[in-house]
Amino acid sequence: MTEPTPTEPTYRDRLRAKALAIATGIVETDGLAALQARRVAREADCSVGTLYNVFGDMDGLVLALNQTTVRRLGEDLIRSFETTAGQPLETRLTALALTYMRFAHASLPLWRAVFEHRLPGGADIPADYKADQARLLALIETIVAAGIADETLRRRAARALFAAIHGIVQLALDQKLADFDAAATEADIRFVVSAVSNGLARARG
Amino acid sequence: MTEPTPTEPTYRDRLRAKALAIATGIVETDGLAALQARRVAREADCSVGTLYNVFGDMDGLVLALNQTTVRRLGEDLIRSFETTAGQPLETRLTALALTYMRFAHASLPLWRAVFEHRLPGGADIPADYKADQARLLALIETIVAAGIADETLRRRAARALFAAIHGIVQLALDQKLADFDAAATEADIRFVVSAVSNGLARARG
Repeated sequence: MTEPTPTEPTYRDRLRAKALAIATGIVETDGLAALQARRVAREADCSVGTLYNVFGDMDGLVLALNQTTVRRLGEDLIRSFETTAGQPLETRLTALALTYMRFAHASLPLWRAVFEHRLPGGADIPADYKADQARLLALIETIVAAGIADETLRRRAARALFAAIHGIVQLALDQKLADFDAAATEADIRFVVSAVSNGLARARG
Repeated sequence: MTEPTPTEPTYRDRLRAKALAIATGIVETDGLAALQARRVAREADCSVGTLYNVFGDMDGLVLALNQTTVRRLGEDLIRSFETTAGQPLETRLTALALTYMRFAHASLPLWRAVFEHRLPGGADIPADYKADQARLLALIETIVAAGIADETLRRRAARALFAAIHGIVQLALDQKLADFDAAATEADIRFVVSAVSNGLARARG
């Protein structure tokens, strides 16, 4: 993935940006299942072959789209992380979790696509996608660092806490246990973050 | 949904069981996206109209399939609940959560179908499906009852804890944060259950 030179984006760069904008629109309107190479190519006014030349294959296009979403999420999370600097662990984790909930709610189809997309067996997630993800988990790690000296445990805590909040947000937005209710979901998140924060404080002694 | 009389199942009952078995096989092999009325009808040797006559529509068939999965899950959870009777809160919640993880791992495509299926906007989940679900959440509620006197809070704790464990299991099985590793997932689950149990104990005083 080469960065466009600031002065003169190539045809390839412009096509890439155009195709991603088209894919974003399709997922936002009709969901990930409706994202098909032929439709993107037609709307981008190019051939499927040219599209694949830019993204490798359909999975490459979806990964590029999802990476954009993860980066946008990252911007919100980093802002929350910076705004709450110096505040207590529970306050910071709650702010991060509620930022996650709000992002997912506001960008529902794109956020869903990040988790609905599964690579075919054996295929590896690109390294820069993994790095983006690791940076976000590191925000949680940094916050819980005061509570957990051991690095392995700290990573576990960050990963488990993220997954726990993700589960609450996803089941709420998918209305799997009840109709979506932002206030109830926020209360669920506060309950788990508070219990985990208390648990960490207690484990610390 | 009428129960078959023990002595003489009707054609409708037999077709219902046959179609569900066929649908189970399709989801297990090719996933929920591959489940189509025409394929089920062809393999069940009936028309799509007859199939819809039994299940209402495709969503009705998927709901019936998912209800079967939720009931099988329920059997495992109830067994865990009964086996750990009298043990400490953390032990019981951990056992329940690990039972959930093992069920999801062993029945992956069917378990995924429960969460991938979304009813069209405005459609209501059938009452008996909701009741099955409520019974499972009540197992967690009963276990945390000793920690939380207030019923609303208890329900919140049960729902939030289930969603948290679900998130951990789902991201692990979808390999969203790392390759699936049963031991690491179990450790993540133990971390959250332990932290929440400690948090509940601390909140209690």
